[in-house]
Order: sequence, then C-alpha cells, then structure tokens
Amino acid sequence: MPLLVMKFGGTSVADLDRIKNAALKVQREVERGYDVIVIVSAMSGKTNELVGWVEATSPMFDAREYDAVVASGENVTAGLMALTLQEMGVPARSWQGWQVPINTTAQHSAARFVDIPRQNIDQKFAEGMRVAVVAGFQGIASDNRITTLGRGGSDTTAVAFAAAFGAERCDIYTDVDGVYTTDPRITSKARKLKKIAFEEMLELASLGAKVLQTRSVELALRYKVRLRVLSSFEETDENSGTLVCDEDEIMESKVVNGVAYSREEAKITLVTVEDRPGISAAIFAPLADAGVNVDMIVQNISERDYDDHPGAVTDMTFSCPVNQVARARKAMEDAKAAGHIAYDDLVVDTEVAKVSVVGIGMRSHAGVAALMFKALADENINIKVISTSEIKISVLIDRKYMELAVQALHDAFELDKP
Amino acid sequence: MPLLVMKFGGTSVADLDRIKNAALKVQREVERGYDVIVIVSAMSGKTNELVGWVEATSPMFDAREYDAVVASGENVTAGLMALTLQEMGVPARSWQGWQVPINTTAQHSAARFVDIPRQNIDQKFAEGMRVAVVAGFQGIASDNRITTLGRGGSDTTAVAFAAAFGAERCDIYTDVDGVYTTDPRITSKARKLKKIAFEEMLELASLGAKVLQTRSVELALRYKVRLRVLSSFEETDENSGTLVCDEDEIMESKVVNGVAYSREEAKITLVTVEDRPGISAAIFAPLADAGVNVDMIVQNISERDYDDHPGAVTDMTFSCPVNQVARARKAMEDAKAAGHIAYDDLVVDTEVAKVSVVGIGMRSHAGVAALMFKALADENINIKVISTSEIKISVLIDRKYMELAVQALHDAFELDKP
Repeated sequence: MPLLVMKFGGTSVADLDRIKNAALKVQREVERGYDVIVIVSAMSGKTNELVGWVEATSPMFDAREYDAVVASGENVTAGLMALTLQEMGVPARSWQGWQVPINTTAQHSAARFVDIPRQNIDQKFAEGMRVAVVAGFQGIASDNRITTLGRGGSDTTAVAFAAAFGAERCDIYTDVDGVYTTDPRITSKARKLKKIAFEEMLELASLGAKVLQTRSVELALRYKVRLRVLSSFEETDENSGTLVCDEDEIMESKVVNGVAYSREEAKITLVTVEDRPGISAAIFAPLADAGVNVDMIVQNISERDYDDHPGAVTDMTFSCPVNQVARARKAMEDAKAAGHIAYDDLVVDTEVAKVSVVGIGMRSHAGVAALMFKALADENINIKVISTSEIKISVLIDRKYMELAVQALHDAFELDKP
Repeated sequence: MPLLVMKFGGTSVADLDRIKNAALKVQREVERGYDVIVIVSAMSGKTNELVGWVEATSPMFDAREYDAVVASGENVTAGLMALTLQEMGVPARSWQGWQVPINTTAQHSAARFVDIPRQNIDQKFAEGMRVAVVAGFQGIASDNRITTLGRGGSDTTAVAFAAAFGAERCDIYTDVDGVYTTDPRITSKARKLKKIAFEEMLELASLGAKVLQTRSVELALRYKVRLRVLSSFEETDENSGTLVCDEDEIMESKVVNGVAYSREEAKITLVTVEDRPGISAAIFAPLADAGVNVDMIVQNISERDYDDHPGAVTDMTFSCPVNQVARARKAMEDAKAAGHIAYDDLVVDTEVAKVSVVGIGMRSHAGVAALMFKALADENINIKVISTSEIKISVLIDRKYMELAVQALHDAFELDKP
C-alpha cells in the first residue's frame, strides 16, 4: 500500500478535541488507501512544564535525565492518538522511540539519527495495522538511554520516517496553512505558495521563516522527501497547503519566490586588521569555539588612514544574532590578548536587520541584485552589508527600515501575483 | 555495599519541594553507607490526569495503549528524582521499566513480574553510582510493550527489587507514619506498632487497612523482605515507622495485634439449597466467573421448616463487597435458571460490616474468640457470621455498630498498651 507520513505539532494536539480532529485527517487518508505513519509532538504546554521542572530542579542538569523526562510528553500524545484512531475503527498502535527503535547518536538534547530500522513497524503493517503513531522528537542511543533531537525535532522525525519508509509524501500539519511569499504580518499582499523548491525553503527557513526548521528541510532535500505544510485547523484536501519539492516538479517558477527577514541581527567590525594569509581563520575559529553563529562576512578596505601601519591592513565585518554579541566580543578580546590577532577597534552595531530575496530562478536570471538595490534605494534605505548565494541575496540594513524594505521588495518582485 | 530499597508514593513526590525532601532522606542513607534503589510513583494527581484522558478518549480502551500513556507519570518522577540527587552531589540515574528491564507478563494493567535481571543496575553500582531511581508500577512484556502492574504497583515493585537485589530492608515512605493497632480515625487509643509479622500485616492489608497493598505484603512474605512503613513528612531515623518482618524478629508479641474493619460488605443467603456433594462448587464457580469476590462463607441449617423438601437441605450464606451484589444476584439467578442449582429464596443484607482481630499469638492461645464474642455481647452487638483463620477471627455485624465494635475490641484486647 502507498504510505504517507503525517506530523502534528503541539498546538494541533493540544487537547483531546484537537487530537480527535487530527485523527479525522488521518482516517481520511487511510480511507483513501494509504498506510500512515503519524508523528506527534507533546500536547502544547506539556514540554514547557517538563522543561520547567527539570530546570528548577537542576540548573546544570544532566542532559540524559532531561531527555528521559521531556520525552514523556510525546509518549502521552502517541498513546492518546492511537486510542483515538482505534475508537474510530482504524487499526493503530503507538510506538515510543526505543520501541521502533529510532537509533540516534548519544548527543543528548541534540541527538542525530543513526538509523530507523523498518522491521518492527513493517511487520505490523503486514499484519493489518493501518496507522503507526510514533512519538516525535526522541530516540534511543546505543547505551539504551533516551535521547531528544532538539528544536524542530518532531518535524525532523517525520522527514526521517518518510525517507526510511519511502513515503509518497510527508505532511506537516501546523498552525499556519502554508508557506507565504513573506510574513503576512508585515504585508497583507503576502501570498501563499502552491509549491516551493527544497533549496528555496531551506534558504527561507534558515533566514528566519518559522514554518519549518532548517534541519528538517535539509533532511528532506537530501532524501528527496516531498514535504507538505498545511493547517490542522482548516478543512484540507489534496490541494491544500504548500508543497516543498524538487524544482523539477515546479513547472513555472518566478525569479524570486520569497522575501525573508531576520530582525535581531548585529554587525561587528574589527577595524584595521592585519591583512595576511590565515587571518580569517584566526578570527573565526575562536568565534566558532565560543558558539557564535557568524552569518554574513565581508572583508573591506577600511576608510581609515593606514599610514601608521607598515603592512597591509583591512577591516573585517561580520554579523551574528544580537544576543551573541557579548560572547563574540569576549572571544575577540581574548584572541587579541593572546596575540593571535591584532586590531585597533571593535565596532558593534546592534540596530540592524537582515532582509533577503530568495528564488531558484536567480540562477539563470541576471539583474536580480540590481532590482533589489534599486527598490531599496528608492525608499532611501542604506545597505550596510551584502551577501549572496546562488539563489539568495541578503542585505543588512538599519532595523527601523526592515518592514519597509520587506514591503518594497515584495512589490518590486511582484510576489503578490501568482 | 549494603543495599536499601526506598519507595516514595504519589503524595511524597507531589511537587519539586517534596521530591527534594524525599531526596534528602535518600542522601542520608547513602551517607550511612548504603547503595540505594529508589522506587517512585507518579506525582500525585498525574496518574489520574492521564487515566482521565485515556478514559475520555476511549471508554473500552486498548490496555496496551493505556499502559503506555499511564506509565509516563512515573518516568517523569524518576528523572526529576535522579536530577535532584545529582544536584545534591549523589551519583544517581533514572531507570524506566524497559531499561532495567523489569520483565512482566503481558496482562496489561494487571501485569505480574517474571524477573528483574540485576546486571544493568549492578554494573552501574560497580561504576560508582550510589542511587538507582526506578519508575515504579511498570514493566515490559516479551513483545516489547509497556505494562503496568495495577493497584499498589509501586509498593510491589519496591518489594520485588528488594528481593531481586537482596536488600537489607525495603522502606515504604508514605503519608502515614506506620501501621496502627486500628484506624486512628475510629479510636484515638490506636497505637503505632513498632513491629508486625508478615502474616499479621497480610491479614490487616486484606481486611482493609490501606497502608500496604496485599500483593506487596504477599511478595515480602514469600521472599522474606523486611518492610518498613514510615512517613515522608516527618523527620525519620532508624527507629521510625513500623517494621513488617518475620515473626522470629518479634521478641514479645501480644495475642492480638490489630483490629481491622471493612465497611462496605453485604451478606447474601441462598435459602433452602439442596445439601449434596458438589453443591458448593455449583454455587461458587459461577460467582467466581462473574468476578464476585466472595469472602466469608457459612453453611448452616436453616431455621425454616423443611417438610416440603424430601432430601437434605441447607442454607448457604456468603459475604461480598456491596458493589458486587447485583453481579452476584445475576450469577445465582442464571445458575438457577440453567438448572445447576436450586434454592427457594435469595436474601440480601447490604447493611453489614466486617470486623476482625488479628494476631500471630492466637495460634498458641485459646480463648481469643470467647473474649471477642463477650466484648461484642457486652455492647449488645449481634454477630451474623463468623469466620476464622489461624491468626484471625472475623465477624459480620450490622454496619451501624462497626465503630463501636472496633472500639470495644481495641479495649478488650488492651491494644492501647505496648
């Protein structure tokens, strides 16, 4: 039988009524002829309650115990979902991570999949079970202890199961009805996309669109798992939501398909750095060691007068999340004190935001950057840093212009038009 | 190192403060030189919440899913207890039933122990772990699914671990400070016992004293596990609570050590039953099949005129819990309709209670029954049914005299005096 993976997040299983509503969507797919693997999150609020207890008990908690406690939330939902389906006459049973088993690394609270053997679940499907309800977000390490996967773990579980079981599609039911050209809270012209390519979704996810976690999209891209994002709270059918798929499946794509933003960015400039081979490594290795997520990097000629420096010098600018600035500053000052790097000044701007346009079509179209810069210039928005990838152009601008920039770019690329 | 099992019930781990309080008691035993296995229940209220969800989802629920959901309560407490101990500097880790593994039968919600292999926990003790925190009330069946043990399951888990690991003692921390000569709510003269024999505790437990479940005492008796009942909410030391132990450990025992009662009893009499071999089986087999817990049985000569019955006839009286009367009546009427038994009338008295005196010393002392009957007669309490075992005498009386009877017997056997 063809197989579907369906994932329901915390708000979609927040109480017994919502679990029932989700189960009805599962039942419909079973009636259409699918075997289904359902991945569930904890009922919303439950994970926070459990995490709160752990943190109150032990601020520097043992991550193995944290995982054992926190994973119980998903186990409860899995059992309740199986019971709800049984009550509707659908042959179903629940599976906890260790029962499948979902084998992961032993990096507790941030574990990664090792493998998901199909044997146990396949056997039950062969015996007539139509729905396997699997507790998301968790697994088991080789020492037989429970692991959790970290943020977005249930989405990642869903994609991993879809890959392991060769599912026709992986449907992610959530509290939004799809992926939009940009955040509808910023412009009412935002339009839901019928389809989006994996690579585009990956850029949008990593740029701050909250619909899907980067990790689950990466996994979907790697295993070519067709992902669909759709709403738990609306009537849905085969055409609902947004399909994240291979670009070959998308007949006609615009040059730009989305405008993303990231609000809480900071720009850090090391002024008058010695320009020598290895200087980048000397700067960015300590930042990585300090856990700073460096995003954009620009090496530019300083506007300062270099007369007092005998060798070649440069300025080095990078961006990172605002809440990592203190850590970044300390890493740089420590590296300077240790003599690994030298700079005259460290200038921080915490009032910046990142705005990006994303589109597969950029690969074959010139002029996207020019159009983007013109649209921003028309609004008198100054660009502080530019960075580009094959399918994305990002700029750092003053945070106060962020909404304006998103609206201007959405208009300039006519994203409101299908 | 000597080993202790300590069990904390739901009210003893109801919130983080109480878990900490319980952990302090564990820490004290570790400092005294014990390795400790801690058995925990779910935080009070949590099991009811989970059971409520299951029952609301599916009235005729799949017991395997019920067990998977309900067992999660104990898993949370186990992790939090391990974290609390770690925070105090005590090397501890949590174990869920399947991790030990606690192998049980597949009778879900009423599973029985098959075996508890020591290897995994012993290995961690050998590596320096001082406390194994084990989720009570649960196990794993041979098909790899989670089981629960039914009522009193955590006490039973504690005794089973004490037996499997050869513990010096099994301490049951609860919301009372020991076992009393009778219920202190019925007479303020009730006195806490320092020691009580397994067999006496077993009679008291099955007679309705709520401190320990019958099943855990049976297991303790079979494996000679010394059990101690003591309070979670008071300062405790080596001499606290009540020790349930082999009678050899009790130097001087009174003839009677406790007065127990069971309030919600009913008396059912089958009037004019044919007195022939096999008649008892013909009556009590259908009652057992109907799930009626028959307690006392008396076969007596009827006061009626037997002239219209050619053969020998008798009356058959038995007692059962009040809420099983309807089931018992139907079982008898069905058996009569099927021609398996014959009787003239079925008389039910739902206004009776059972009062019992219990004591190992009865074995070697005559006159206990006489003293009991005299004490009741002095209060003009009529005895309806009598039943005796080696260490117990029970009577069925009108329910309205129950408290009076308990007080009179407590006085008559001078149980207030040590």
